[in-house]
Amino acid sequence: MLTTETVERWLAEDVGHRDVTNDVPGDTTGRLVATEPAVAAGLDAAVAVFDSLGVAAENAVEVGDAVEPGDEVLRVDGDARNVLRGERVAANVVGHASGVATTTREAVDAAREVSDSVRVAATRKTTPGLRGVEKRAVVAGGGDTHRLTLSGMVMVKDNHIAELGLEEAVRRFAERKSFATKLEVEVETPEMGERAAAAGADIVLFDNLPPEAVREGVTRLPDGVLSEASGGITPETLPAYADTGVDVVSMGWLTHSAPSSDFSFRTG
Amino acid sequence: MLTTETVERWLAEDVGHRDVTNDVPGDTTGRLVATEPAVAAGLDAAVAVFDSLGVAAENAVEVGDAVEPGDEVLRVDGDARNVLRGERVAANVVGHASGVATTTREAVDAAREVSDSVRVAATRKTTPGLRGVEKRAVVAGGGDTHRLTLSGMVMVKDNHIAELGLEEAVRRFAERKSFATKLEVEVETPEMGERAAAAGADIVLFDNLPPEAVREGVTRLPDGVLSEASGGITPETLPAYADTGVDVVSMGWLTHSAPSSDFSFRTG
Amino acid sequence: MLTTETVERWLAEDVGHRDVTNDVPGDTTGRLVATEPAVAAGLDAAVAVFDSLGVAAENAVEVGDAVEPGDEVLRVDGDARNVLRGERVAANVVGHASGVATTTREAVDAAREVSDSVRVAATRKTTPGLRGVEKRAVVAGGGDTHRLTLSGMVMVKDNHIAELGLEEAVRRFAERKSFATKLEVEVETPEMGERAAAAGADIVLFDNLPPEAVREGVTRLPDGVLSEASGGITPETLPAYADTGVDVVSMGWLTHSAPSSDFSFRTG
Amino acid sequence: MLTTETVERWLAEDVGHRDVTNDVPGDTTGRLVATEPAVAAGLDAAVAVFDSLGVAAENAVEVGDAVEPGDEVLRVDGDARNVLRGERVAANVVGHASGVATTTREAVDAAREVSDSVRVAATRKTTPGLRGVEKRAVVAGGGDTHRLTLSGMVMVKDNHIAELGLEEAVRRFAERKSFATKLEVEVETPEMGERAAAAGADIVLFDNLPPEAVREGVTRLPDGVLSEASGGITPETLPAYADTGVDVVSMGWLTHSAPSSDFSFRTG
Amino acid sequence: MLTTETVERWLAEDVGHRDVTNDVPGDTTGRLVATEPAVAAGLDAAVAVFDSLGVAAENAVEVGDAVEPGDEVLRVDGDARNVLRGERVAANVVGHASGVATTTREAVDAAREVSDSVRVAATRKTTPGLRGVEKRAVVAGGGDTHRLTLSGMVMVKDNHIAELGLEEAVRRFAERKSFATKLEVEVETPEMGERAAAAGADIVLFDNLPPEAVREGVTRLPDGVLSEASGGITPETLPAYADTGVDVVSMGWLTHSAPSSDFSFRTG
Amino acid sequence: MLTTETVERWLAEDVGHRDVTNDVPGDTTGRLVATEPAVAAGLDAAVAVFDSLGVAAENAVEVGDAVEPGDEVLRVDGDARNVLRGERVAANVVGHASGVATTTREAVDAAREVSDSVRVAATRKTTPGLRGVEKRAVVAGGGDTHRLTLSGMVMVKDNHIAELGLEEAVRRFAERKSFATKLEVEVETPEMGERAAAAGADIVLFDNLPPEAVREGVTRLPDGVLSEASGGITPETLPAYADTGVDVVSMGWLTHSAPSSDFSFRTG
Repeated sequence: MLTTETVERWLAEDVGHRDVTNDVPGDTTGRLVATEPAVAAGLDAAVAVFDSLGVAAENAVEVGDAVEPGDEVLRVDGDARNVLRGERVAANVVGHASGVATTTREAVDAAREVSDSVRVAATRKTTPGLRGVEKRAVVAGGGDTHRLTLSGMVMVKDNHIAELGLEEAVRRFAERKSFATKLEVEVETPEMGERAAAAGADIVLFDNLPPEAVREGVTRLPDGVLSEASGGITPETLPAYADTGVDVVSMGWLTHSAPSSDFSFRTG
Repeated sequence: MLTTETVERWLAEDVGHRDVTNDVPGDTTGRLVATEPAVAAGLDAAVAVFDSLGVAAENAVEVGDAVEPGDEVLRVDGDARNVLRGERVAANVVGHASGVATTTREAVDAAREVSDSVRVAATRKTTPGLRGVEKRAVVAGGGDTHRLTLSGMVMVKDNHIAELGLEEAVRRFAERKSFATKLEVEVETPEMGERAAAAGADIVLFDNLPPEAVREGVTRLPDGVLSEASGGITPETLPAYADTGVDVVSMGWLTHSAPSSDFSFRTG
Repeated sequence: MLTTETVERWLAEDVGHRDVTNDVPGDTTGRLVATEPAVAAGLDAAVAVFDSLGVAAENAVEVGDAVEPGDEVLRVDGDARNVLRGERVAANVVGHASGVATTTREAVDAAREVSDSVRVAATRKTTPGLRGVEKRAVVAGGGDTHRLTLSGMVMVKDNHIAELGLEEAVRRFAERKSFATKLEVEVETPEMGERAAAAGADIVLFDNLPPEAVREGVTRLPDGVLSEASGGITPETLPAYADTGVDVVSMGWLTHSAPSSDFSFRTG
Repeated sequence: MLTTETVERWLAEDVGHRDVTNDVPGDTTGRLVATEPAVAAGLDAAVAVFDSLGVAAENAVEVGDAVEPGDEVLRVDGDARNVLRGERVAANVVGHASGVATTTREAVDAAREVSDSVRVAATRKTTPGLRGVEKRAVVAGGGDTHRLTLSGMVMVKDNHIAELGLEEAVRRFAERKSFATKLEVEVETPEMGERAAAAGADIVLFDNLPPEAVREGVTRLPDGVLSEASGGITPETLPAYADTGVDVVSMGWLTHSAPSSDFSFRTG
Repeated sequence: MLTTETVERWLAEDVGHRDVTNDVPGDTTGRLVATEPAVAAGLDAAVAVFDSLGVAAENAVEVGDAVEPGDEVLRVDGDARNVLRGERVAANVVGHASGVATTTREAVDAAREVSDSVRVAATRKTTPGLRGVEKRAVVAGGGDTHRLTLSGMVMVKDNHIAELGLEEAVRRFAERKSFATKLEVEVETPEMGERAAAAGADIVLFDNLPPEAVREGVTRLPDGVLSEASGGITPETLPAYADTGVDVVSMGWLTHSAPSSDFSFRTG
Repeated sequence: MLTTETVERWLAEDVGHRDVTNDVPGDTTGRLVATEPAVAAGLDAAVAVFDSLGVAAENAVEVGDAVEPGDEVLRVDGDARNVLRGERVAANVVGHASGVATTTREAVDAAREVSDSVRVAATRKTTPGLRGVEKRAVVAGGGDTHRLTLSGMVMVKDNHIAELGLEEAVRRFAERKSFATKLEVEVETPEMGERAAAAGADIVLFDNLPPEAVREGVTRLPDGVLSEASGGITPETLPAYADTGVDVVSMGWLTHSAPSSDFSFRTG
């Protein structure tokens, strides 16, 4: 959900109180055009930007489509002043989201080379204010959102385990969580993964373990318990983790370090 | 200006309606710690995040300081629930801003190798919602903010020149702008730069020109008129542009493609 | 997460532009006191209300505690004008939330008479603007939140099944959802429940079925698949459903029709 | 006044960051249908919900109309994704408001059995965030809004009287209030009511008195001074109060304890 | 009610994204000082401005006090950066509100010369966004707020009367309004005033009538019905209206045309 | 940028929770008509007000046009309830902005009598919440906006000079500011103006100097350095300052003390 208020803030922070440069009369059309290969994302946000300015806008491709230099991704038509006021923000959000989608697509493709089934997931390491935009961009790139908020899953972590012991910690959180949410346990060794599964974890997270330890951990888990690997995984180290048999590899990198894709806005 | 509302939205998008994981009693302390070399930025935003949660927070370093792995950048103390609710958002915003500052510092250092005076500036290609955070991070890294909003400078662009002719376009915008703002003209050739300066431009922008053309353009400008080069400049191409004698090299890359710096939040 | 903005809106809608009645000088103390038996909830919201007015406030009981007439639940101390401005909103939110918690507690107790393990859950039928307050009140009363937002679980519904067939609908949604979320299938017969479980549902929802049909449906499900009954269930019909062996009985009634609990604010 | 911002918050709290269930292509129509007898209210809010999603919506009945099971109250037409995203919030707000209207209508009818002229009024005991929606629902049910905010009337209360004496308290507040607002005095005995009227009260409030004392109080008031009874009045005790000759019976119950009316949203 | 959000918007519109001028280290004190005679108002808003910046602030005089050049009205103490960021907004709001209060005080004094009892009231002609600040400033100057919002009183106007006839219009609105609000009828002749009173008006508004007609109208009203004169009344024409025997003279001029009072902010 | 949120707040503060007066069925047209000579401004804001109410609205004149009594400036068409709800706010914002534009036009005309080139500029002494509306109204009247926010220009002030010395203060701020912004130095004597220009000031501000001292200061400045006079300048003292040869005369008076222009809204 991208609210009117959010979109108008994006515009206000860019425009300021009086914009002389774009104060031109009449109507115009405009197109947002890819200038490098990318996976398109963030188009809904760009439509919302122009919508809030009273400018008609529509996607020229679908979110998730691969685009090549010269491909149009968005077409707009309306008051020239407002088209020009919206163009920078629209290009920024599409560039940012498409950068996330493109990076995700590359990661998924790289993972697919070594595993038919592994999922590549984002984390909560998103840019403040853009959680939804970035998570949907990850989906556009073929990735998995992972939990969307802290409320979306219960995570038993090292400090809980240190205080209560693994089994008691799992028991206590299982009792407090809703039947509708899953419970994941963060473990430091393959053995702890086995215990976590026995205690009732839906998912076991091998955090900051080397690939070989993840591989061993995965083999110890019973059917029906999902496994996840995370912790500073980069495009370079992704294949090694994807090849461990783990169900999910999650990477903050998809959202916090993806370079923008470049798009150019052309009027008239 | 970072408002309470903005900071609370960052938190709300991360926390959701009911967070079981972090629902722990008592007080705790916490530290945000660098795990790789970086230039610290975004600390004010992190303090504002904890502030809005009623958690005492203070900088351990100054914005703009270079930090090494293990260095603390922020210390907090307060209700454990709220410390844990704020940690992810705080780490995200500090990581993002420090990534921008670090990338800027690297660019400035690279430019300094070839020029004692050239400025490296950001553009309006910032992440929606983070204009102020990112521009201040650029300053932390030693860069120049460039104009902060559309209202901060008047830019005579190719479409204005196509319609009115260069001299008439400059004249008309000079008349409409405030005495308090500068007027920049975007040009496509060294010759146009000369004409723009003669017509009264405060700054001449050589956009998407190769370094040699920028160099020629700069030599044609009279004293007191600033020169700027921009257009898809990357860390790779920066030195060539910095070496042209141009006053300012501006790069969207500083804000739209800087990878996050990594920080870790540790409690207790 | 209850934001400053939300709490200040509650106050603004009650106070208006100029309040003569409460424009009294000096400081005062105040207490929010139960006037009927209730399960206390919403106290955090009341603290936030007074906090935004600069009035010190603290819980006198824990959320979830049973209170009797005369029991204090909140104590405040501060500027008299602001104490008086906050009292009505604070009493309203505590009364509303405690009403939900009390009703939930009664439902849970009634269900417990016929089943040791059945959970009583709320639904998305909450009061607009109060999703978080009400869901946390359900927890205070011993109930289960169910999914907190549409994004919190994937629900395969009758229209999806009508269009794609049950198995294909489940397959398609399972592919599109995150590994971190569960998939629930809404079914109309015990047989469909069996098919849904075989297709991979984490939870089977028997919607608008009579208790005996729910009972049969539950017996057909394999281990590890959760069962839920819902559809216009009231305190009167709850025991019959709770007695079917179903894992979860969910009732919109907990949030949309619970009468407020009565509290009185006393100053000085 | 229901703002875009408020309505979008209602939606955002229900939808979350990524909704897989309702992510279906194409357009659809929908109808909100009563499933039990009710007095329709909140329809403007539901129209605003769909409006903010770009879905065309119109009332099928007027606010205040009595509806029977099967009656349509709202028709919508638009993008299926957005129709489905709006349906729960729209049904919740219409159900809530109609519950208030229905309860009010029942109270007014019950009061009418014993008095041709008594008014049944709401209080400031409304659900936080829904003051306007609920007050307008009370009107839809034939009730009286009473003051809408603290600023809407001046109320001389027991603590003012304790401090200043009744006559002095009335005099002081009469001086400070606007000529445009009324002054009401809260009294504990019939005698005080008489004194309050003599001192200049526009309205005398008999708070927490038994019906017989209200009856006596009313007879002591001069023409042109209105009388009101309040204090924990329920549907059960309402007739006894309505029969006292009092002008207004006010009940927090209308807004804080009315059960929702049930409506079902049907697509296609 | 002045919300955090409103105050932070005032600051944000003044400060922008990066303020170099005021970026100075350390703490400072400051004082807001009158530079011309004025009636102080808006001090609560100024305190809220500094409060939102974490700067301690307190009134040095009471709202409504007459101040002379050199008199302090506010003292602050805190982080120099934030003191300097708040000073302009604080001075602006105090200057604006005090201008309204001062103008009101002058009008009240002028009216008092010809009448011991006439009230001078503001209207709904206030500056957008400042309804509450200005209405409270009117009170500080000794004026009457009049209705605070459209919901604060029912006004039967010429178009209602044209459509329904005066008596029927009054009857219909009296039925629809709450017992808690007054009903005012706008009339064009003394005779209509008499009829309006007979029909049940609480207040009769003589709109755009010359003083002599107002005087005649007032004499025709029975006891207990208030009279009001309005319509383009300025400080020049006020005495003539105040001398008619009318109860209230209302002037949009108090809020829409009062010049600011001048205050100077001094640091250190 | 005027956001939906801002405009809806203006409406909400005027309308309140339930408006009986304007609750009339059907559609209507309306016109905003000048009742005194004025320079029209604020029309975009009025259009935004009606737009947010779903009422079609269009300018009948351009912003900056001189209008005479009887001239229409805005025409609207839509739901009568919403037309009536918007009229007061629309008339208030147009009256306020046009008052600023009219006052500015008068000041510019008066300055033009003594100088062909002097600019009349506004300051940061604007009404809180209306920075953009007022600055654009100044432009409509032929004035200069001056800096729009603190971030729009760097100002070296007396306290900076006292601490660092003039030359060092200029040097330090020149280093910290962006190349895109100008640097102005506030001076107390003609001599200081000369030194400021030599140190690199783009603009020299003669603050609170008598006209003759400004005249001397201006003659000492080199070509290419702009001069500005400010400090309590009123319409009375403006000509003397405009006649000094200074480039810019700035007056807070344009925005903080301009009386509203009167407009009347007529329906049907």
